[in-house]
Order: sequence, then structure tokens, then C-alpha cells
Amino acid sequence: MTEFRKALGAFATGVTIVTTKNQSGEPVGVTASSFNSVSLDPPLVLWSLSKNSLSRTAFETSGHFGIHVLADTQDDLSNRFARSSESKFAGLAWEDGKLSSPILPDYAAIFECRTKYQYEGGDHIIFVGEVVSFEAHDRPPLLFHAGAYAERRPRPRGEMPSTVDLKTGRYTGDFLFNLISRAYNLAWLPVRNRMAQRHMDQREFSVLAMLNTHGAMSAKDIRALLAHTAQSPDDAKLEQMTRRGLIGSEVGGYHLKEAGRALLIELLAVSKAFEDEVAEQFTLGEMAEVKHLLQRLIDVAEQNVPKLDR
Amino acid sequence: MTEFRKALGAFATGVTIVTTKNQSGEPVGVTASSFNSVSLDPPLVLWSLSKNSLSRTAFETSGHFGIHVLADTQDDLSNRFARSSESKFAGLAWEDGKLSSPILPDYAAIFECRTKYQYEGGDHIIFVGEVVSFEAHDRPPLLFHAGAYAERRPRPRGEMPSTVDLKTGRYTGDFLFNLISRAYNLAWLPVRNRMAQRHMDQREFSVLAMLNTHGAMSAKDIRALLAHTAQSPDDAKLEQMTRRGLIGSEVGGYHLKEAGRALLIELLAVSKAFEDEVAEQFTLGEMAEVKHLLQRLIDVAEQNVPKLDR
Repeated sequence: MTEFRKALGAFATGVTIVTTKNQSGEPVGVTASSFNSVSLDPPLVLWSLSKNSLSRTAFETSGHFGIHVLADTQDDLSNRFARSSESKFAGLAWEDGKLSSPILPDYAAIFECRTKYQYEGGDHIIFVGEVVSFEAHDRPPLLFHAGAYAERRPRPRGEMPSTVDLKTGRYTGDFLFNLISRAYNLAWLPVRNRMAQRHMDQREFSVLAMLNTHGAMSAKDIRALLAHTAQSPDDAKLEQMTRRGLIGSEVGGYHLKEAGRALLIELLAVSKAFEDEVAEQFTLGEMAEVKHLLQRLIDVAEQNVPKLDR
Repeated sequence: MTEFRKALGAFATGVTIVTTKNQSGEPVGVTASSFNSVSLDPPLVLWSLSKNSLSRTAFETSGHFGIHVLADTQDDLSNRFARSSESKFAGLAWEDGKLSSPILPDYAAIFECRTKYQYEGGDHIIFVGEVVSFEAHDRPPLLFHAGAYAERRPRPRGEMPSTVDLKTGRYTGDFLFNLISRAYNLAWLPVRNRMAQRHMDQREFSVLAMLNTHGAMSAKDIRALLAHTAQSPDDAKLEQMTRRGLIGSEVGGYHLKEAGRALLIELLAVSKAFEDEVAEQFTLGEMAEVKHLLQRLIDVAEQNVPKLDR
């Protein structure tokens, strides 16, 4: 059974809240991902309700239901209506629809239906409704897939356009190499400004970060790890950092000193501020996605390069 | 009608191909997004078929069907089975399933069903099948939303974990600043290697790209545009490039010479190879997404910085 449920999860769906009134005229509603379209003419849609649902009698007898297709910001609402509770509508500004089904204020689309058929469906009842009224907003949908909420990633139609013209040397704004370079330069800009105030450069930042992550290291190992970054420190740079008291030098190699760690933390706070700014503008899914895709980019590019900072 | 179809498109679905045999024993199949689960015990699923479908008789009489839930790479297969054609199975390595429905070799999940009910559904017939066999692979699903294919973007559960510990200076592998830096360093690595072979550095690459994009520019303007990148060229560097014949100097400023453009194009070809490698590993949607999200990152970070390369 669990395996079957898991296999069913391979089919992604939107998420809906289906509502009606019970025999006392009170609003009832359930979360359902079993919605789908059936017919255009007449306009029919369907969904399935568990025979064990507390709302079963209401849906069987009311003769009408309202289907709210949820937007990607509405997972809380989905959770609320998925739980058994007497007070699902508490605090929600619902109104009576045309057939008196309770209509919630917020949705990607709404379908108000007259119950047309009720079909036997094993441990569920299949409700087919004739749509008497509908409305849709252009909003990204909430998705359910593999037992979890997900978001939609639009897919471009056709091939990606060419980004570089190797006859003229012109490239478009969405040339990947250009985008990564611009993101890097802009993310580093406040950090560079702070480094300038502290009379240090990017090489020193890299050395501090390496020593904090890996512990004491020889000059040779530091250079090996940083060789591919063009930020590899020469002996003069390491000696200068030692003189400033940022790192210490012993037989085993260089190690981080407290002043160095304090400086590193100051710079990390500046670089973290960039992530925080981005997080304010991105959805959780977008933030996870950009990190995931950057990691995939890294995996593609990373061939025989030492793995840094994992 | 069109508005109704558009509103239905607000509900995202996976995409399936449903197959059976016709009365001559030939395989038939259709693309359907109307699939959904109905019951766990007994295991029932449903989908709807247009009454006008050429395959209607086959599905009405065969007593069995196979439902293939498609993965995100299978839009071509979806298109093939969505068209009216006699030869949908041509060239496909299908095999007989347990109930003799034709089973295609590739899918995110398969459900082999005995036809249990056929229900009236307006201009469609609702087929309910009892699942006698199923199998699922852990593959990202093909989605259909708002009349177009889409992909799934996974959504993390709960908040994003903290990436930087400002007490210890430790950061996680998914620290955004770190990811961008690593992607940048790795994307630039082959370009740096080529630059080393050509006895040039990143400043020179930047100058060549600027002059090719913007035409002739004064040293002051070049430096203003590149100031935030830490790749701004001093006069000595510009003179050196002039001596090498990469750029020319006139009263109005510096301009690109043919040798400079040839070198730029050589380096762009190397940097383009990175994009091509990534494109091989990414879906179209992922590629569009990483570019879109990087542009959004740039927009967040870009405050009073001159706009480069748009």
C-alpha cells in the first residue's frame, strides 16, 4: 500500500481546496490533489473524496461544491484544510458563491460546480461537477509531488538561443559565463570595499578562510588548494600576514591567529549580508534552486581541481 | 470555452501516456494529463478520454490499459502520442505488459490496470482502472501547466538552514557567496589557462570585451566601467596592450584592433565551452532557471554600479 502510494506520487498535481455546506449550513472543506478536468462541453471537472471523510455526508447531499486551485504561496492553507478540524474556516474571509458553496478569498483559480455525478471509486467517491462559474488569476501554482510540496519551474519553448557570436565576439546578457562573472563581481563588491578599509586583499581573505576550514597548513598546501582561483599567496604575502599577526608560522605550517579569525568573521558577515538580501527577494524554492543549480554547475566544471570548502 | 480551458490550465498536472491494444491486437496510445489516483484499497486510478478519440473503441473494449507517467525529459514522447497518427509506436521498443497493454521502455512510473469502470463524463469517458502492477523510478516529472510543459522545482521543507557561523567563521558548502565564488573560479579556470598561454591576464580580457561591446572608449571610461570588478586597467596596462597591437589609441580613446578581436573571440570560445558543457547536463528549464536566477541575483546586488554587457 505504501509502495503504491509512493508510486502514485510520481504523478505531480496541483493542490485544491474543495468546499461545500453541511446540512446545518456550515462551511466544510477538504484539501484534494485528485482534481482534474473531464469535459469542455458540457464543462465538467472531477475530484475524489475518501469515504471516511468527516465531510462525506455534506458533499453527498449539498448538490454543489467550490474548487479552489491553490497558488504557490498557499501551502499553509493547504495544510489547514488537510487536517481534521472543526474550525478550518476560522478567521478566513469566505463568502457564499453562486450555488452557496463557501468561496475563499485567495486562489489561482476557482470553479463553482453543481454536483452532476457521484461515482463508486473503491475507498473514495468520485464527484463530477458541472462548472457554472469560474475565474482564474495568472499565479504560479502550488504543486504536490512525491509526497511534498513543490513549485513550478517554467520551461522555455524550443532550444536556448545562442549566447555568443564567435564571428564578432558579441555576447548576450544571458551568456552564462558573463552572468556568473557579473554575479561574482557584484557579490564581492562590498567585501572588496571592506577589505580595502582593512588594508587587505582577496588573497589574504582566501588564506584566512582556508586556515579556518582546514586548520594548520603548509605554504605548499595552501597554494595547491588555491592555485585554480588565481588567489594563491606567494611567500611574501604569507610573511606579511604573519607580521600583521593574522596568522602564525610554526614548523608544521601556518595557522590562524585570533586577529585573523576576527577579520575573517568581519568579512564573512559582509558576504553573508548579500545572501540575506537575496533571500528576501527569492522564494524558499528559488533560493534552494539557485544553490542547487550552482552546485551542479560546480560539479560540471570541477574536474581535477582540489575540493575547497566542502 | 477557450476561457474555461485556460482556467483549467491553472491546475498543474503531470503528463501520462495511456496505452492498450485494439481489436486487431495493435498497440494504441494517447497522451493524457487527466490521470489521477482514486483509491488505495482497492488500488484504483482514473483518466478521461475524448469521445472523439480514434482510440475510443480500443479502450472501451480491451479491458486493460497501461499508464506511463512521464519524466521531465520525455516531452517529445508526449508530443508524439498527443498527435493523431497511425504510427505512434514506430521505432519504440515496447513490450507486452502483464495484461498485454503495450509498455514503453521509459517512464517515471507505470501502472498496469484492468478496466474496472467506464463512467459518463460529458464529451469524455472516465476510465477507472484497478492497478494490478506498478513500478516507479525516482525521476523528476514532466509537468503541464497553463498550456505548456514545465518542470518541478523542489521546495525545501521549513526555513533555509543558516550557512555561516559568525562565532567561528565556519560556513557550509551551500553558503551563497561561496557557491558563486567557486562557480566563478571554476568557470574561469580554462580561460585563465588559455590566457596564460597567450601571455595575457584578466584585465586585458576585460578591456577587449569592453571595447568590442561599447566601441572606442577613453581610459577613464574603461576604468569607470570596470572599477567594481577589481579588473580595472592602469595606463601601463593599456599601453602594453597597444604595443602588442591588441588595441589602438587615438585622440578619442582606445579601440579594438583585429588582433585584439581575434584574441577575444578565442577566449570567448573557451568560456562558451563551459556553457555548452553545462547545457549537456541541465534540462532546458534548469538552464533557463539558473540564468534567470543569476540575473535576479545580479539585480539584487546591482545598486549604483555601472551596467556592464547588457
